[in-house]
Amino acid sequence: MNMEGINLEEKFSQFDELWSPKIIAQMNDYHFKLAKIQGEFVWHSHPETDEVFIVVSGSMRIDFRDSYTKLNEGEMCVVPRGVEHKPIAEGECHIMLVEPAGTINTGDTRGERTKAADIWI
Amino acid sequence: MNMEGINLEEKFSQFDELWSPKIIAQMNDYHFKLAKIQGEFVWHSHPETDEVFIVVSGSMRIDFRDSYTKLNEGEMCVVPRGVEHKPIAEGECHIMLVEPAGTINTGDTRGERTKAADIWI
Repeated sequence: MNMEGINLEEKFSQFDELWSPKIIAQMNDYHFKLAKIQGEFVWHSHPETDEVFIVVSGSMRIDFRDSYTKLNEGEMCVVPRGVEHKPIAEGECHIMLVEPAGTINTGDTRGERTKAADIWI
Repeated sequence: MNMEGINLEEKFSQFDELWSPKIIAQMNDYHFKLAKIQGEFVWHSHPETDEVFIVVSGSMRIDFRDSYTKLNEGEMCVVPRGVEHKPIAEGECHIMLVEPAGTINTGDTRGERTKAADIWI
């Protein structure tokens, strides 16, 4: 069993790819993932699960169909299951995601932005 | 549905009580909780679930029966289900916990440190 400390900055230093979440920890059947984002992502939803966004550094916005949420460093948001959303970041933003193992980054939308959901760093 | 941003520092400013986790968000059947800790907690385990500790500010240590993990700001640790542990913080430390709704802070040990598991802020 791995009970070591996990340093977020050290983990972020291991990759540069944007919009490609990397798993850093597992709790029961949930994954904690890190992602670097900049620009606009695609509209999608996760019909089967809520999804947590935590901003570790930088700032981002989550657009919903009729509202939006701005998140700065030290802020988080729960996107409810089934709610269409589009993450956006003007500058590079580093985030932690919490969601069930196997959750696909583009949810119910598959395309060139879709990444594997099982990459550990 | 509440899709607003949650500011961790603002939430921490709402309470001073030590060792008394407050819920700030729910994702599916999991809670995100904030706690202020200082001193030694009690030995306990959670037979039914893993538990995540994330240090938001300060530093802490998690003692296991035959090892320990030190955590500074920006570091996290997954305590596996059933593993006895005792959190310790020399100075005041602010942490976020992630665990199933209803998880009791003292796990399988009940006593004066046991707090209600359903306090939202």
